[in-house]
Amino acid sequence: MEKLIYLDHAATTYVKPEVFEAMKPYFVEEYGNASSIYSIGRNNRKAVEEARATIARCIGASEPGEIYFTGSGTEADNWAIKGAVYAARKKGGKHIITSAIEHPAVLETCKYLKKEGYDVTFVPVNSEGLVDPADVEKAIRPDTALVSIMYANNEIGTIQPIKAIGEITWKHGVLFHCDAVQAAGSIPIDVKDLGVDLLSISSHKFYGPKGVGVLYIRKGVRLENLIHGGHQERGKRAGTENVAGIVGMAKALELAVANMDQYSKKIRRLRDKAREQILNRIPYVRVNGSMEHRLPGNLNVSFEFIEGESLLLLLDMKGIKASSGSACTSGSLDPSHVLLAIGLPHEIAHGSLRLSFGEANTEEEVDYLVNCLAEIVERLRSMSPLYEDFLKANK
Amino acid sequence: MEKLIYLDHAATTYVKPEVFEAMKPYFVEEYGNASSIYSIGRNNRKAVEEARATIARCIGASEPGEIYFTGSGTEADNWAIKGAVYAARKKGGKHIITSAIEHPAVLETCKYLKKEGYDVTFVPVNSEGLVDPADVEKAIRPDTALVSIMYANNEIGTIQPIKAIGEITWKHGVLFHCDAVQAAGSIPIDVKDLGVDLLSISSHKFYGPKGVGVLYIRKGVRLENLIHGGHQERGKRAGTENVAGIVGMAKALELAVANMDQYSKKIRRLRDKAREQILNRIPYVRVNGSMEHRLPGNLNVSFEFIEGESLLLLLDMKGIKASSGSACTSGSLDPSHVLLAIGLPHEIAHGSLRLSFGEANTEEEVDYLVNCLAEIVERLRSMSPLYEDFLKANK
Ligand SMILES: Cc1ncc(COP(=O)(O)O)c(C=O)c1O
Ligand SMILES: Cc1ncc(COP(=O)(O)O)c(C=O)c1O
Repeated sequence: MEKLIYLDHAATTYVKPEVFEAMKPYFVEEYGNASSIYSIGRNNRKAVEEARATIARCIGASEPGEIYFTGSGTEADNWAIKGAVYAARKKGGKHIITSAIEHPAVLETCKYLKKEGYDVTFVPVNSEGLVDPADVEKAIRPDTALVSIMYANNEIGTIQPIKAIGEITWKHGVLFHCDAVQAAGSIPIDVKDLGVDLLSISSHKFYGPKGVGVLYIRKGVRLENLIHGGHQERGKRAGTENVAGIVGMAKALELAVANMDQYSKKIRRLRDKAREQILNRIPYVRVNGSMEHRLPGNLNVSFEFIEGESLLLLLDMKGIKASSGSACTSGSLDPSHVLLAIGLPHEIAHGSLRLSFGEANTEEEVDYLVNCLAEIVERLRSMSPLYEDFLKANK
Repeated sequence: MEKLIYLDHAATTYVKPEVFEAMKPYFVEEYGNASSIYSIGRNNRKAVEEARATIARCIGASEPGEIYFTGSGTEADNWAIKGAVYAARKKGGKHIITSAIEHPAVLETCKYLKKEGYDVTFVPVNSEGLVDPADVEKAIRPDTALVSIMYANNEIGTIQPIKAIGEITWKHGVLFHCDAVQAAGSIPIDVKDLGVDLLSISSHKFYGPKGVGVLYIRKGVRLENLIHGGHQERGKRAGTENVAGIVGMAKALELAVANMDQYSKKIRRLRDKAREQILNRIPYVRVNGSMEHRLPGNLNVSFEFIEGESLLLLLDMKGIKASSGSACTSGSLDPSHVLLAIGLPHEIAHGSLRLSFGEANTEEEVDYLVNCLAEIVERLRSMSPLYEDFLKANK
């Protein structure tokens, strides 16, 4: 069999066999409509409500009724932001505060709303990729409808001071949304402790199926609907429920939370090993983002004099699957907005690689990765006129 | 095993074994991100693009690029309508024409937009549930941004004169959206022949998985996005692709189209048998909707002096799963807006039953159904004071 070393868990994960087993009955056997009254529908409804309760428990919600299923993390983000500002519009709310390094699901939504006449403040981050809560507080205005700050960044893994920001939004009576798509399954989430009103997660980041997400809406918070229609999700998110997907998401999160200590220790060890070896063996490398406030599985490194896409393709030929910046923005040739926001020059941002480790990775894979990387980087540099000039200048 | 006679295919269908087999590899084995550049992602991308091509072929689209995947039929409807009117807003478009008997995914979206300041004309239907194309033409104004008329109704199965309406919207240069969620898989769809610009379908109505839909957008039509974010679906519908769901949807539609003649003949025969036997054996019954312009699998009957929900529960106890009106609006106690729109009095609308037949139903099941129905209707009527009064008055 071809070698496959998957180091792109931040982009998406496979579905765990136990998760798939849990989903299976809801495709072929239990196929009634979860919103109908008869028995075959009731089994489905029961499965959805159990999933809701599981997810509520896993993120520390007060009650299952605070959990709403969506078709993706992106939909949850769109709903949180548009839903909050549309609901606030009547009371004069027209300002949003977010950070410069959010995922496109948040950034593009905010840019769209800006085009529609809303005001948006993009608070900066420091060179480690951290938001300063004081910057959020300074940005709050009387017409601020929402603060939206991600829990953990998808490119550099930085974990933001959500609890400190939650205290500020609470004090000022401003709604607080947190995109926790990268955090869920990797680090503990407790919505009450964090003080968030709205929180998005997505199943396919923690070994659940793609195409299902959750928006947590704190009881009492009023959002406009994003998708209108039938009475599903208590009239707040219309569309026939993706029962199998919902069951799979809950099972996956339950497993992730139950094994979090064990796996995050393992994943962090692999990540740290990779980081040390890369720094030891390859010159002109920098690690991006905070090492202290960081997801256990994330490593983001820039190789000077290198083009990230070439690196990625050569790694792929060795069976190593990684990512340059965010997979969600691939297809674009602009350097990552996250790396630019932490102050990387364009040419260095271009030579960046995101390695995101998962439960099934091994020490041997890390060794292989580093060997391949060292070889490929050297080869690419040997072909780079920039590197040649640099060597000459520094001789 | 408990008896199960499923007569609610209009609400949702099980996933066919062949469809499930086609989906399987995309959960556990082929798990890369469909938008990423490396090989594991490429397999996923290839699967998504093949599915797109299949669906384009099945509905007569000019090219696969006109097919956009969504998280449900409801999302496709929301996107078509909001996307069209938001895009038209700058040019002064602010009027929508739709019918009185649309699915809540369309109706509630239009009502929301009305609340937001748009104008909506709800054209009526005749006693058979048919829209008169002349009514649509009369309703068109210079600021009309969109006409949205469903292909086939989910409660009474009426098939609308879409082609005639398409000629009118074409003549007037108005965008035309068609909710074909109930039609897809049951009757042929050819978007070019119908003359529609936008068309919604949903996988779980034709033996595909729940939680995946399609919006067909004719090349050249500009819609505002409903869900903003990453570059998926050529930048028009953000969110990591539900690869397994997309593959399943295409497989299911392909099977449905390939076997349509054979199955629709079978289903129509079962439906007609049920209809005749019910009319023969049970007094004070009426069949709702057109018999000529009707989905092959739909039967909608009203039993006078009967409460639909009781009927449904007693049928359920006999193992028969049916529906009173639209499953999507169950939970509400109002009588069906569709039955009211075709002129049924409240009390008769309340005593209505939707039976929707599928490929796996049998003649024996129809016999059993009619026996159960006759018995249950008699029993419920014997307990009804209204029926007693009626009998006395007519003695
Ligand atoms: C006519 C019609 N439109 C739209 C929908 C909504 O589709 P989905 O269930 O995929 O959200 C339905 C489903 O009940 C329907 O029957
Ligand atoms: C931080 C973050 N937010 C949102 C999303 C979008 O989630 P989904 O892929 O389910 O649409 C992602 C996924 O890449 C993400 O990493």
